[in-house]
Amino acid sequence: MNPIVQLIAVETSPPSLQDNTGDLDRLRKGVESAAGFMPVVPFSCMGEVARKFREAGFKGVAVVNDKDHVMELVDFLHEPPVLLPAMALDLGTTHLEAALVDLINGDVLARANLENRQIQYGADILTRIHFATKDNGLAVLQSEIVSTINALAEDLAAQAGLEAAAIRALAVSGNTTMVHLFLGLNPYYLCREPYTPLVNWPDICLAGDLHLSLHPFSPVWVMPSVGSYFGGDLISGILASGLAEAEETCMLIDVGTNAEVVLGNREWLIACAGAAGPALEGGVAAMGMRAGPGAVERVAIDPETLELKYQTIDGSLPKGICGSGIIDLVASFYLSRIIDIRGKFRTERCPNRFVQTSQGAAFVVVAADESADGNPVIFGQVDLDAMMRSKAAMYSILITLTNQVGVGFDDLAKIYVAGAFGRHIDPRQAITLGMLPDLPLETFEPIGNSSLAGAERVLMEKKSRDTCRELINKITYLELNVNQEFMIRFSGSRFIPHTDTSLFPSVPVFD
Amino acid sequence: MNPIVQLIAVETSPPSLQDNTGDLDRLRKGVESAAGFMPVVPFSCMGEVARKFREAGFKGVAVVNDKDHVMELVDFLHEPPVLLPAMALDLGTTHLEAALVDLINGDVLARANLENRQIQYGADILTRIHFATKDNGLAVLQSEIVSTINALAEDLAAQAGLEAAAIRALAVSGNTTMVHLFLGLNPYYLCREPYTPLVNWPDICLAGDLHLSLHPFSPVWVMPSVGSYFGGDLISGILASGLAEAEETCMLIDVGTNAEVVLGNREWLIACAGAAGPALEGGVAAMGMRAGPGAVERVAIDPETLELKYQTIDGSLPKGICGSGIIDLVASFYLSRIIDIRGKFRTERCPNRFVQTSQGAAFVVVAADESADGNPVIFGQVDLDAMMRSKAAMYSILITLTNQVGVGFDDLAKIYVAGAFGRHIDPRQAITLGMLPDLPLETFEPIGNSSLAGAERVLMEKKSRDTCRELINKITYLELNVNQEFMIRFSGSRFIPHTDTSLFPSVPVFD
Repeated sequence: MNPIVQLIAVETSPPSLQDNTGDLDRLRKGVESAAGFMPVVPFSCMGEVARKFREAGFKGVAVVNDKDHVMELVDFLHEPPVLLPAMALDLGTTHLEAALVDLINGDVLARANLENRQIQYGADILTRIHFATKDNGLAVLQSEIVSTINALAEDLAAQAGLEAAAIRALAVSGNTTMVHLFLGLNPYYLCREPYTPLVNWPDICLAGDLHLSLHPFSPVWVMPSVGSYFGGDLISGILASGLAEAEETCMLIDVGTNAEVVLGNREWLIACAGAAGPALEGGVAAMGMRAGPGAVERVAIDPETLELKYQTIDGSLPKGICGSGIIDLVASFYLSRIIDIRGKFRTERCPNRFVQTSQGAAFVVVAADESADGNPVIFGQVDLDAMMRSKAAMYSILITLTNQVGVGFDDLAKIYVAGAFGRHIDPRQAITLGMLPDLPLETFEPIGNSSLAGAERVLMEKKSRDTCRELINKITYLELNVNQEFMIRFSGSRFIPHTDTSLFPSVPVFD
Repeated sequence: MNPIVQLIAVETSPPSLQDNTGDLDRLRKGVESAAGFMPVVPFSCMGEVARKFREAGFKGVAVVNDKDHVMELVDFLHEPPVLLPAMALDLGTTHLEAALVDLINGDVLARANLENRQIQYGADILTRIHFATKDNGLAVLQSEIVSTINALAEDLAAQAGLEAAAIRALAVSGNTTMVHLFLGLNPYYLCREPYTPLVNWPDICLAGDLHLSLHPFSPVWVMPSVGSYFGGDLISGILASGLAEAEETCMLIDVGTNAEVVLGNREWLIACAGAAGPALEGGVAAMGMRAGPGAVERVAIDPETLELKYQTIDGSLPKGICGSGIIDLVASFYLSRIIDIRGKFRTERCPNRFVQTSQGAAFVVVAADESADGNPVIFGQVDLDAMMRSKAAMYSILITLTNQVGVGFDDLAKIYVAGAFGRHIDPRQAITLGMLPDLPLETFEPIGNSSLAGAERVLMEKKSRDTCRELINKITYLELNVNQEFMIRFSGSRFIPHTDTSLFPSVPVFD
């Protein structure tokens, strides 16, 4: 497997007049005998490592970081440790998810998640990029993300009965902007044509360099990105879905703040990304929230009686509505003709389900007396418009990408759907909206948080680390920001299910 | 030549929608196209390097450190610089000598030397090792040596019209203890059986790690050592003398605080070291001083009239006596029978040349009214005893080493004599004392400060850096601290020229 941190059992004979090899030279030779490579010892831990090696009687266990270009010996232990904990991290714009993995056997020791503390300086990427260009803004954002990661590390460690400093490695998978902010790199050019990252493939650094509370000599692997809008999180997704080894052509869809899509197989890969996600994320719709306790995740409206049924996550009292609930809701609106094909409310269909707000009419999903906090869960025209843009963007991205390589949706063996979007949505409802193509439901396969899963893999396997690096050279990236076809497709997709209804034979058409 | 820091001219096309490769990825690929290797960019300079690359319009000159295991891109310049200054350093126990070398063409831009500021904490190695084991002692000694090096760097830079921070590399050649103190490594075990260094072959670190005032990303090459008593300074000497490429067997003698001797040729090398030097260094003999202005460097005494003639360096008024002066003086004492074969003063030979001191009778080399400061330059029995021990040690080292491999002195094609000792002594006088073997004078070849010369070489040539590393594996080190033959030889050598006068046919024998 060759995890990113390796334990090498070393046994050397102690120094003698016949062999007065220097302590660290002796240790390095011991590693070479045991493992077949000669590690380097970084300046900043030479004294400490030598002291521990001598104290242990010139035998024990060397802790070696695989830094790609070089194997780096950073610690020495008397005895083999019971655990070798490492942290895998999905560095999301709004939310971070993490897992603590034991590099000895691959066990997941703990999981945790936390809101990104950068949010106070801007909910979305563009606001944060702007903030980063102000005096000290970049340092503030970096410090907030580091503090979020440290809090997660402490949570994970506590769950496993450890200190955060016992964590020996970190793999980070995030979008390109988040990675820039995490590494303290100027994100200014990311959002300006031609959308150039400062770096796609950062070399491995150490946790101490970033003031992380992990063991200071933990290697920090950052999943490489392909471009400003194609981050390491999607490289993780490709790893986790197995797309790059697939015989038949498949697709991977990851909807976070952006929708990121990869199409291909073992021979070729093409990818693009676009802003199709925000309407589905917590914090965008007025009553939107992340998939979590109290979120309305399922909605059904009887097309005849207009009776509405909902289901919340955990069955707790409703507080808001998450992405899958929104998709169900809007599809039900369409099927029960509460909205028209342009996504505009037809309030006359059920006037008593609407309330007036400062933003206009809003549909009451959950009445005040049924909710967790005594406020109704409502969904307004503004939220609906955002959803229509997102669904149009999503379909336009998919069709533009497949057209680019002359592949039809029918040619796809699988569509892997990552993240909360994949885990929670009902593909049938997304098809009704014209958000996903009209394919047999078994084509769609949810794969969970593939950004996190990819980070877990690179911690464990050298093969996966090598694959990441190959992927960024193999992928063709289609820039949609300046793509004419995408613009045209986008206009045609702003109806339910589509201006060309023949694309969605399974969806009822109303005159 | 491949100097330790390389300038790679890079020209890339600027980012475009067709090629939005990340800035640093673009730069690394540019280096790969130009130079055939893909460098890494250390975490701590990623942002700065990317900024400079962009500011320069995506073309210019990459500054790349050759760190053996990895090529490390640390800076980017708009234009090729006129100079690429690097500092070569002989890190002596009492004195530091340095040269500023231009890595572009190998020119020496400046030379400077300075007393080691650690001296206030102990004149000799053992005192300093003891001091280092006290609270904070190691940190104090490290800080003093760093401050000495910084002062030298500023001197060198000023001579060349530069700032110290313009210096882009450092190569350090010193004895093993000095290297430990410089790197902040515990020297405790160096002087305790089995005399084990903490490290012989430290990996390259950066000037910033050591708080040096050079450019913080200057690579710091430390010449590897073979053992506690065989430092990198002697590896430098082997490099500078060409010993490891010699067809015929040669010898290298370097007398500093220790006498270090290497014997061999292109096939094999054997080395040993011992305390043969102190008597010749400034600060040991009561009136001893380094070879410098005002030092008596030549002495002749007419064996009949006992008239004494001396010569000082630069012809300035005498202040003390340096190593070569001491050797001339003691040889003249012997030839004029002012001392006996045991090295004891025969004051009756010229009572008027002696004065009484608290340490006993002392010979007046320079009268008070001829000296620089109105004090006579004198040489006492204590100084003479130290000189006798040194000369006995030196000869014993040479004969023990040659005997070890069955080589006779007559088999030696050359004896390279390094350092001030080699530059200043008259081999004829050293033979008279029985310090050097009785060989034709042309056998002895002074090679100057070979520790410094070796450091200059490794800055300029990859081949020399590789050779250093080969040498430490090739050399057999003979430990004299526990060598019985050495002890016996030492006793036999405490006469002038030797108990076995047949070994010195050219030296007159007095009954």
